[in-house]
Amino acid sequence: MTPESKLTSLGITLPQPTAPLANYVPVKRSGTTLYVSGQLPLADGKLLAEGKTGAEVSPELAATCARQCIINALAAIRGEIGTLDRIFQIVKLTGFVASAPGFTGQPAVVNGASDFLVEVFGDAGRHARSAVGVSELPRNAPVEIELIAELK
Amino acid sequence: MTPESKLTSLGITLPQPTAPLANYVPVKRSGTTLYVSGQLPLADGKLLAEGKTGAEVSPELAATCARQCIINALAAIRGEIGTLDRIFQIVKLTGFVASAPGFTGQPAVVNGASDFLVEVFGDAGRHARSAVGVSELPRNAPVEIELIAELK
Amino acid sequence: MTPESKLTSLGITLPQPTAPLANYVPVKRSGTTLYVSGQLPLADGKLLAEGKTGAEVSPELAATCARQCIINALAAIRGEIGTLDRIFQIVKLTGFVASAPGFTGQPAVVNGASDFLVEVFGDAGRHARSAVGVSELPRNAPVEIELIAELK
Repeated sequence: MTPESKLTSLGITLPQPTAPLANYVPVKRSGTTLYVSGQLPLADGKLLAEGKTGAEVSPELAATCARQCIINALAAIRGEIGTLDRIFQIVKLTGFVASAPGFTGQPAVVNGASDFLVEVFGDAGRHARSAVGVSELPRNAPVEIELIAELK
Repeated sequence: MTPESKLTSLGITLPQPTAPLANYVPVKRSGTTLYVSGQLPLADGKLLAEGKTGAEVSPELAATCARQCIINALAAIRGEIGTLDRIFQIVKLTGFVASAPGFTGQPAVVNGASDFLVEVFGDAGRHARSAVGVSELPRNAPVEIELIAELK
Repeated sequence: MTPESKLTSLGITLPQPTAPLANYVPVKRSGTTLYVSGQLPLADGKLLAEGKTGAEVSPELAATCARQCIINALAAIRGEIGTLDRIFQIVKLTGFVASAPGFTGQPAVVNGASDFLVEVFGDAGRHARSAVGVSELPRNAPVEIELIAELK
């Protein structure tokens, strides 16, 4: 199954990518490498959750947010290159998890992103990654994820 | 206008790049990709501001700091390749904003960097980016920015 | 001296790379670029130290942890490509230092990583880097380091 047909089989409709409000772009291409800007867990313009993971936001909900960040990243990629079927592989992601003091479960949160990428892309979706805890994120989001992908 | 002539028209003189005091370099080249080390808002060896954004440092001053980080990044690039006119495009930046508890305006701070890049490079200055809030930065700087650029 | 013989002369035996427990990989190759996932200062499955740098963990011990992160990164690279002698150069590292409030000495901590890379790879080990302070890291580690390297 191609990534696009896999998304369809999962019943996932990617949102229209939203234009950034500033002097940056959702995706920048350098050779065959795509750099995707840090994505927030927005759906229909609203965050799935707000606050710190381990306090206002449970780790499970934060993992769902991480998955939503990837949905938005894929929407941004499709907006740039037309179809996800042109992706050769996912290369790297960095997951920034807004963390309550003492919360050290960032990897399980970011698994929400990693698992979804492998669900859509299969082995080509396996990637290098870092998961770190930060003190604050834009709009009080619990998770922000940036991505590097490679074109065929 | 080339980036170098644009800088001149803006009345900006890039500082001499300072040699790092440790076993790393300001810019590392890999193929046509330039990785610029995280830059602090130093001018004449002193930080433009110290402290956390949203507490000791206003968001507006932090945005000015973000712009200064880019001035230093461009100085580092010019030190490596001789002239900014060899830049094909700006690819990616990551803005780390030292944030007071509850400060979630990182994107507006990092716009100080993004806007300046587009001012100097035009459309080639548009980039992917992430903006995150961190708890502490070296020397108590309010902002640190790293950059990826691509050579012609 | 090659990197492998240098390691031997330093009396360093790289550990067996451990398989990640999730849908990501220790190293992902994109062309001649290797992206190494964020490494923790694990030795024999245990962290060298736990807690925040500048509080429970001294800056000196955190620098030792940074060095251990690189040992694990090199083990991951060798696991992927067979021998470190195929490395052309170290390109970039990002050092995330879990920092107690007011601790701003992240660069000295990350020097533990940078110095070791130059010890092993010589000039080819000099890299671009960022050093930032974060509020929390997985498993309460004081340091996490990710790396980009380039193959010959």
